[in-house]
Amino acid sequence: MEFFFNPKGIAVVGATANKLKGGYAIFRNLVIGFKGGIYPVNPGYKEIDGITCYESVKDVPDPVDLAIVFVPGKNVLKIVKDCALRGIKGVMIEAGGFAESSDQGKAMQAELTAFAHHAGIRLWGPNCMGLVDAVHKKIFSFVSPGIWDELIPGDVSLIVQSGMLSGGFLIHCMSHGIMGISKVCSIGNKMDVDECEILEYLINDPDTKVVGLYLESINHGRKFMEICQSSSKPIVLLTGGKSAGGAAAALSHTASMAVNTAVASGAMAQAGVIEAMDFNQMIDLCRSLSAYPELHTMGEGRIAVLTYTGGAGIISSDFIDQMNLTIANLSISTREKLKTVFPDWMPVSNPIDLWPAVERHGGDVVYKAAVEAVCADPGVDAIFIHAFTGGFFLDFDMAVLADQAKLAGKPVFCWVIGTSDAAKKFKLKALDLKIPVFTELFRAVECIDAVFTRKKNLERVSRTTMETDPFQINETSRQILESRAGILDEYLSKQVLAGCGIPITEEYLAASVQEAGQNAGSLGFPVVMKGLKDGTIHKTETGLVKLGISTENGIKAAFNELQTAMGIKGKILVQQQIQGDLELIAGLIRDPQFGPCVMVGLGGVLTEVLNDFVFGVAPLTHTQALELIDRLKTQKLLNGFRGAGAVDRNALAKILVKLGQLGCEVPMIKEIDINPLMICKGKPVAVDASVILSNQDMT
Amino acid sequence: MEFFFNPKGIAVVGATANKLKGGYAIFRNLVIGFKGGIYPVNPGYKEIDGITCYESVKDVPDPVDLAIVFVPGKNVLKIVKDCALRGIKGVMIEAGGFAESSDQGKAMQAELTAFAHHAGIRLWGPNCMGLVDAVHKKIFSFVSPGIWDELIPGDVSLIVQSGMLSGGFLIHCMSHGIMGISKVCSIGNKMDVDECEILEYLINDPDTKVVGLYLESINHGRKFMEICQSSSKPIVLLTGGKSAGGAAAALSHTASMAVNTAVASGAMAQAGVIEAMDFNQMIDLCRSLSAYPELHTMGEGRIAVLTYTGGAGIISSDFIDQMNLTIANLSISTREKLKTVFPDWMPVSNPIDLWPAVERHGGDVVYKAAVEAVCADPGVDAIFIHAFTGGFFLDFDMAVLADQAKLAGKPVFCWVIGTSDAAKKFKLKALDLKIPVFTELFRAVECIDAVFTRKKNLERVSRTTMETDPFQINETSRQILESRAGILDEYLSKQVLAGCGIPITEEYLAASVQEAGQNAGSLGFPVVMKGLKDGTIHKTETGLVKLGISTENGIKAAFNELQTAMGIKGKILVQQQIQGDLELIAGLIRDPQFGPCVMVGLGGVLTEVLNDFVFGVAPLTHTQALELIDRLKTQKLLNGFRGAGAVDRNALAKILVKLGQLGCEVPMIKEIDINPLMICKGKPVAVDASVILSNQDMT
Repeated sequence: MEFFFNPKGIAVVGATANKLKGGYAIFRNLVIGFKGGIYPVNPGYKEIDGITCYESVKDVPDPVDLAIVFVPGKNVLKIVKDCALRGIKGVMIEAGGFAESSDQGKAMQAELTAFAHHAGIRLWGPNCMGLVDAVHKKIFSFVSPGIWDELIPGDVSLIVQSGMLSGGFLIHCMSHGIMGISKVCSIGNKMDVDECEILEYLINDPDTKVVGLYLESINHGRKFMEICQSSSKPIVLLTGGKSAGGAAAALSHTASMAVNTAVASGAMAQAGVIEAMDFNQMIDLCRSLSAYPELHTMGEGRIAVLTYTGGAGIISSDFIDQMNLTIANLSISTREKLKTVFPDWMPVSNPIDLWPAVERHGGDVVYKAAVEAVCADPGVDAIFIHAFTGGFFLDFDMAVLADQAKLAGKPVFCWVIGTSDAAKKFKLKALDLKIPVFTELFRAVECIDAVFTRKKNLERVSRTTMETDPFQINETSRQILESRAGILDEYLSKQVLAGCGIPITEEYLAASVQEAGQNAGSLGFPVVMKGLKDGTIHKTETGLVKLGISTENGIKAAFNELQTAMGIKGKILVQQQIQGDLELIAGLIRDPQFGPCVMVGLGGVLTEVLNDFVFGVAPLTHTQALELIDRLKTQKLLNGFRGAGAVDRNALAKILVKLGQLGCEVPMIKEIDINPLMICKGKPVAVDASVILSNQDMT
Repeated sequence: MEFFFNPKGIAVVGATANKLKGGYAIFRNLVIGFKGGIYPVNPGYKEIDGITCYESVKDVPDPVDLAIVFVPGKNVLKIVKDCALRGIKGVMIEAGGFAESSDQGKAMQAELTAFAHHAGIRLWGPNCMGLVDAVHKKIFSFVSPGIWDELIPGDVSLIVQSGMLSGGFLIHCMSHGIMGISKVCSIGNKMDVDECEILEYLINDPDTKVVGLYLESINHGRKFMEICQSSSKPIVLLTGGKSAGGAAAALSHTASMAVNTAVASGAMAQAGVIEAMDFNQMIDLCRSLSAYPELHTMGEGRIAVLTYTGGAGIISSDFIDQMNLTIANLSISTREKLKTVFPDWMPVSNPIDLWPAVERHGGDVVYKAAVEAVCADPGVDAIFIHAFTGGFFLDFDMAVLADQAKLAGKPVFCWVIGTSDAAKKFKLKALDLKIPVFTELFRAVECIDAVFTRKKNLERVSRTTMETDPFQINETSRQILESRAGILDEYLSKQVLAGCGIPITEEYLAASVQEAGQNAGSLGFPVVMKGLKDGTIHKTETGLVKLGISTENGIKAAFNELQTAMGIKGKILVQQQIQGDLELIAGLIRDPQFGPCVMVGLGGVLTEVLNDFVFGVAPLTHTQALELIDRLKTQKLLNGFRGAGAVDRNALAKILVKLGQLGCEVPMIKEIDINPLMICKGKPVAVDASVILSNQDMT
C-alpha cells in the first residue's frame, strides 16, 4: 500500500488547465503539498501551470509509482494497461459510472479488476474522492483546491465508502474546527483495494490513533473482523443499509449488498468495534477516543459534573444513569474545598452547580478550584465540564484546567453553548488541548461512555478466565455425520450433539408399542412421544408431537396415531418430558461473510415478541461465549425470576463453544438449530434439535 | 397574567448605576424596548442613566403594576409588602437563595407565598431569569444588556424552570441563528406563578405557535395535563430527574421532587404532549413544529430524500424506516422528470442521489427540477433535502425551493454540512423561509417524524370511535365497598370487579369438603383451590394456591392442607382453572399528581424482564383506553402468536375504562391490582385480583 500513501511520483491522467474541472483540481491539489514528482498527462497540453504535461502515461519519467486517473470510464482500461506497461504500481480511479450505475459499468469494472489481478497492478476506487493526508498535506483528490488552508492535522483516520460524504465531511470538520485528521481514504466501489487492506495499513500507521469507517458493505467479513480484533487502536464503524429501505438505497448507490445486520453486529461487538449510528456521532466518537484511547483511572466511570446550570446537571445525571456510568460520590475533602468558593447557603453535591460561586468569584477562579478538587478526589474518574461562552462571568482558562486534569490522569469532556463566535474559538482551543467538546448533552455522555466502555473492554481482554474445552466428538457422532446427508431427524441430530458433550433429553427409539412402554418405564411418566419422518423439521405443526403421556393406554394410543400420521417409513421416539423454567434457542449458521456463526436467543413466546438473539463468530472461547450471552437484551432474565434459579451461564457457554467448534471442525454441517434449549433447574438441555448437512441426500 | 406580560409600568427594586451588577442590567434591558413607565428604586441614587430613581417602591408614580426585585433574599418580604401597599399586582423575584438552598431559604419562600395568597399579589420566581418577549422586545431580566441586537422574533415560546438555562439557551439560539423566539419565561422555584398559568397564557397568546417547556417538577399534574390536552398548539416537554441520579440532582437544584416517570409519561402521551429528551432536541422539535403545526398532506409521512451523497441517502433511509415514516415510491412521471437532468447511466430511485446530475447542470438547476418533480408527485408527503455549503457547484436558491413546496403544501426539511460561515448563512436564510435545518441526520428524521406524528394525532382526535360505556355497579359490589375496609380478599375483590362488568373466573366459596366437591362438579375438573386469609395478598408464596386438582381425592387433600395452612379463620375458594394464552396485568392507582390512573402491562415472566407497563389518567374514554394499549412496547404480542388468536382489544379496553371509572366514582378505592388478567381465547379474564380500600380496617 506504500505507493498509495507515500508515492515517489504521481502521474495525473486527465489533468487539464481548465480550472473548473476535476482534472485540474487533482493536479493543483498535488502541487499544494506533495513533495514527489508530479506529472500531468493529457495529449492536449504541453504544460499546465508551468509543469510539463505528457502525451501518455508511458512517457512519464521516473520516479513514478502512482497514477491518479480522472477520465471517462470507457477510457480507463486502456490507461490502466499503459500504467502497467510503464511499471506503475497503483492506480487511483476517482470518476464514477462503473458498477454503481449500469450493467455496462459493471462489465467495465469487472474487466478492470480481472486485468489488475492478472497484471499485479493495484486499483483504488472507482467512484471515490481518493486520499487526503492532513499531517503531510498530501491531497490526492479532485475536491476543490483553495479550501486546504483550514486542514487540521490530527490523529483520526477515516475510511469512507461514499465519495461525496468523505469530501463533504472532511470540509465540514475542517471548517467547523471539529476534529483533526490524519488520513481520509475514500474507497468508492472498492473493486480491488478494500477496507481490509486500508484498515491494516492504518492500524500500523504511526500518525493514526483511531480509525473511523463508513461502509455500505463489508467485502470479506471474517477477514475484516479479524483485523479489527487484532487492532490495538479503537475502531469506530458506521454501516448503512440496516433497514429494508436503507438496504435498497445501498444497492443502488455503491453496488453493495447489505450484510446480515445481526450477524455483522455480533461480529463487530466480538471484535471490540464501536458501532456508530450517524455521521456526526461517528466523528464525535472518533475524536473522543483519539483524546483518550487508554484510561488509567481507578474506577469504571464515576463522573464529576461541573455545571453552571442545575437543569443541565439534572439532565446529565439522567443520561449518566442510562449509560454504564455513575455520578461520582464526592469525598469529604472535595466538599470542603468546594465550600471555600461556594456561598454559605449552598450545599455541595454532584452535579456540582458552580453558578452561585461564579456570581461571587468569576468563572476563572471557580472552575479552577472545582477542577483542582475533583482531580484530587480518588472517587472521580472523569470530569464533565459545562461551559458557556456568552458572558455571565463564566469564562475560564481551559488550558489551566487541561493541565490540572492531565497531571491527575483524568479525562475531561466539555459541553458548551453560547454565542457562536466565542463558541467556535472555545472549540478550537479545546481541539488544541485535546479536550473533546460537544453541543449536544446526550452526545457528550454517549462519548464519555464509549471511552469507558473501551477501557472496560481492554481490561476484560487482559483478564484470564475459565479455559475453553478442546473439541471432542465421539464415534457415534462421527459415524452419523459421515454416513448421513441432508436434514438429520431429531434423534440423529441430538445423538450428534450428545456426542460432542451437549446435554440432551433422555430418549429412545421404539419399534413397537411394547418397546415404547418399556422406554417409558425406564424414563418415568409423563413422557413425550414424537414421530420422526425423514426431511421434516416442523413436527408440532404436523401433529407429530404428543406431550404429557402418563399411562400405558396413552402410549398405545399415541403410538398408533403417530404411525398412522407418518405412514410406515417414520420412526417413533419416546422422550423424557422436561419441565423447564425458561426456553432458549441456540444454533449454528454459515454466513457468507463471516463463516460459521453461533446464535443464542430467547425462545418460546419470547422469540416472537422480543426478537432477542445474538450471533458470535466461531470458534468462540469460553469467555467470548459468556460475553455473547451478556449481549442478549434480556440477559438479566438468566439471573432467575419468580423463584426459578439462575441459569448456569458456564454450562450455557460450553454449549455455545461446542456449537462453534462443530461448525469449524465439521465443514459438512450447514446448520444446527436447538429449539427449545430448555433451562431445567438452571441447566440447559436440548429438547429438540435439527442438524442439517450440506452434502446431497443419499436416500 | 397581563401585568407580567404587558405591564403598564415597572418598578426595578435594587436598580443600581454599577454596570457590573444585575440590578443595572435589569434596568438597562427595560430601556432597550419597554414602552411603559420605568422606575428604578434604590435609596442610594437620585437617578440612573438620567431616569429618576426612587427611595422606596411606595414612592413610585403611576402607572405601575409590576415590580422586578433584585435584592438579597432577606429583604424581599419587606419589599413585596410595600408593593402590595402601593397596589402593584405582580412581583418578579429573580435572585436565588430561597427554597433551593437552605431551610432558612425555604422558610422565607413559604412566608412570601403565604403573604402573597393573603394579599392577592402575584409572585414570579424566585431564582429565575424573568421574562423575555422577543417580538415586542420586552426584556425583564438581568441577562447582560448588549446581546439583544441578535434577538430573532419568532413564534416559539419557552417555559424554563432553570434560570441559567433559559438565558443560556436563548443566547445560544439567538447567536447561532437556530430559532426565532416569541417569549422565554424563566419560572425558577415557581413559589406562586407556575407552569400551568403561564402555559394557559401562552396557549391564548396570538404571538405563540408552539410552547416548549423544561421542567424539573410538575406542580399540579392533573391540571397541567388538562391544559395540555385542551391546547390546539403543539407542546414539547423536557423533564429532568427521570433517573435516580437525575432526581437527586433535581432535588438539590430547584427544590423539586421527581414525579413518577411512568405515570407522568403516560399522562403526557394521553394529552398529546411531545416529550423531548435533551435541550437542543427540544429546540429542534419546537422549531420544526412551529414551521409545520398542521399538515394537509394526503399520506402519513412518505418522504422524498434529495441528496448529493448516496451514503447520507442510505442512512436517511435507515432512520426513516426506524420511525413511523416511509420512503416514498416515486411516480412514473416523477421518474421521467428526473431523467431529464440525470445522466443516462443513472437509475432514478428514492433517496434521489442528485450528485451526478449536479456535476452536469449545477445545483441550482438540479435541485429546482427535483423539488418541482416531487412537489407534483401525489405519493410524496414531505421533502428532505440534503445540502452542502462548501463548493462542488452544490449551491441552490433555497427561496425558489421554498416557494415551490409552499405552493404544493408539502413540508421541507434540510440537512446541511459544509464550511461554517456558509452554513450559518444557509441556516439564517432557511430560518427566514421557515424551513427547519439540521446538522445531525438522525435529529432531522426525528423531527420530520414528530411533525407527522402530530398530524396523525390530530386526525385521530377528530375521528369518531366506539362509544364509552357509562359506569354501572351492581348492588353486591356497592355493599361490599360500603361494608368493608382495607385489603379485600380475592373473592370479594373479584365480586366488586364482576359487579362493574369486569369478567372474572367462575368460582365459589366452599365451607366444607362436600361443598368444594359440589363446586368442582359444577365447574368441571381441573379446578384451582385457594386459601383466602384476611389481609394477605401474596397467596402463591405462602402455599395457599393449589393448581390442577382433577379428582375428588385431590379436593379433599387440598381442602385439608389449605385449612391447616390458614387456621380456622380462612375461607376456601374453588375456582375454574383457566388455560390462558397470555398473561397481562391491569390495575388502578392514585397518583399524588395525577389522581386515579389506570395501568396495563405484560404479566407473568414477561413482567420481570420487559417492565412493559403503561399508565393512563382516569377517566379514560374507550378510544383513550385503546391508545393506552397501543403504547405497550410489545403490543404486537396482542395480535396473536404461535397459533394463539389475537387479543380482543375492545374487551381489554372496556376493562381499563371500568377500572378508571371505579377510581373516579368510588373514592374509597385506594388501589386495584388484577394479576394475572389472563387472555383466554382472545378474551381477558381476571384470574386473581386485590381491591384495597383506604378506610380503616373495621375488624
